[in-house]
Amino acid sequence: MQKLKQKLNELIGITDAEWTAFSQKLQEQIFKTKELLVREGSVSPPLFFIKSGLLRTYHLHDGKEISTYFACDNQLISSFSSFITQTRSIEYIEAIEDTIVYALSSQALNELYKEAPKFEKLGRILAEQNYLCVFDRTLVMQTKTGKEKYLDFMANNEQKIIQRVPLRMIATFLGIVSESLSRIRKEISIT
Amino acid sequence: MQKLKQKLNELIGITDAEWTAFSQKLQEQIFKTKELLVREGSVSPPLFFIKSGLLRTYHLHDGKEISTYFACDNQLISSFSSFITQTRSIEYIEAIEDTIVYALSSQALNELYKEAPKFEKLGRILAEQNYLCVFDRTLVMQTKTGKEKYLDFMANNEQKIIQRVPLRMIATFLGIVSESLSRIRKEISIT
Repeated sequence: MQKLKQKLNELIGITDAEWTAFSQKLQEQIFKTKELLVREGSVSPPLFFIKSGLLRTYHLHDGKEISTYFACDNQLISSFSSFITQTRSIEYIEAIEDTIVYALSSQALNELYKEAPKFEKLGRILAEQNYLCVFDRTLVMQTKTGKEKYLDFMANNEQKIIQRVPLRMIATFLGIVSESLSRIRKEISIT
Repeated sequence: MQKLKQKLNELIGITDAEWTAFSQKLQEQIFKTKELLVREGSVSPPLFFIKSGLLRTYHLHDGKEISTYFACDNQLISSFSSFITQTRSIEYIEAIEDTIVYALSSQALNELYKEAPKFEKLGRILAEQNYLCVFDRTLVMQTKTGKEKYLDFMANNEQKIIQRVPLRMIATFLGIVSESLSRIRKEISIT
C-alpha cells in the first residue's frame, strides 16, 4: 500500500495516524479477467484504488457496451455518481486483466470525513477530477474528429491502457467504429 | 445575503465567524440583459451565487451557441473546469435577464480552504453537484428522445427557467432543433 500512501500524501498531506485511519477502511479484493466488480443496479458500489491490473467502466446502450473510462496500476476507478449519491449504479466496472484493488465504501469515506476534516479535501479532489474527466470527454466527443479523439486519448492515458485495452473497447469510448479506429492507428503509425 | 447564508448553513453548517469570513470574500456585481459575465478565454473566472436574475453558460460550436446550463435566483453558476484548474474558460456566461450576483474568486475559495477546513466540504459538494450535472446531461443526451429530454428538463429546472429561457436556447441545450421543441411543447400542453 506504499504507493497509495504516497499518492494520498501528495494530494492531502497525511499524518501516520490519518493513514492508519484511512487504510483500516480499505478492503483488498482480487478479480480475474472479465470479472465484474460492479454491475448495473449495484447500490453505492465502492471506490477502487488499483494496486495492479486493468479495468474499465461501461454502460449498455441499446444492448451495446459503451466504454466510458479506463484505469490501471495506481489509479482510481468508480461508478462515481452512484458512489456519491448512494444510489443504484447505471454503469458496470469490469476487469480487463487480472486485477487487485483496495475498495473504499461510500460509508467508510463519510466516516473519514467526520473523523478528520482533511479527508473532505480528498473528497473534493476526487469529485473535481471526476468532473474534469466527464467534462473533457463530453467536449472531445462533441467537437473533435476521429483522429483528433484518438490522439487526445493517447495523450491522456497511460501506455498500459493504450497498448493493452482491446481496440473494440477504445472504439466505443471514442464513439467511432472499430474499422475507423484501425485506419486511424495505421495512419498515425505511418506518419 | 440572508438566503445565501441559509443555503450555506444547510450545506455545511457554519458559525457566524465562518459566515463573516466567507461573506467578506464576495463581490456584488450587476449585469444587464445580454451582458457577458464570462467570455471564452477569461482566466479562472469566479463562481457566481445568484441573488436575482437568469443566466446561462454556453460554448461556441462551429460558430453556433450551444447552451449547457441555466440558473436563476439563489442558484450557482460557473465555468467550473476553468474555476478549479485556474485556466482559460472555454465557456461563456451570459445574463438572459438583468441579474445581481455575488462573485467568489477561485483564489478566495482557496484562502477559505486554508482558514477553515469546513470550506473543503463546500468545495466537495460544489464539485459533486457539478459532476452530477454534467454526467446526467451526457447520459440524457445519449439515451433519450427529444420529448423525454424536454420532460427531464422540466422535471429538473425551476419554473422561472422553464418559462423564461428563450426556446432557441433550450433547443440547443437539448440538442434538438427549435421546430421539434415547439412541436414537443404543443404535444405536452395538449396531453
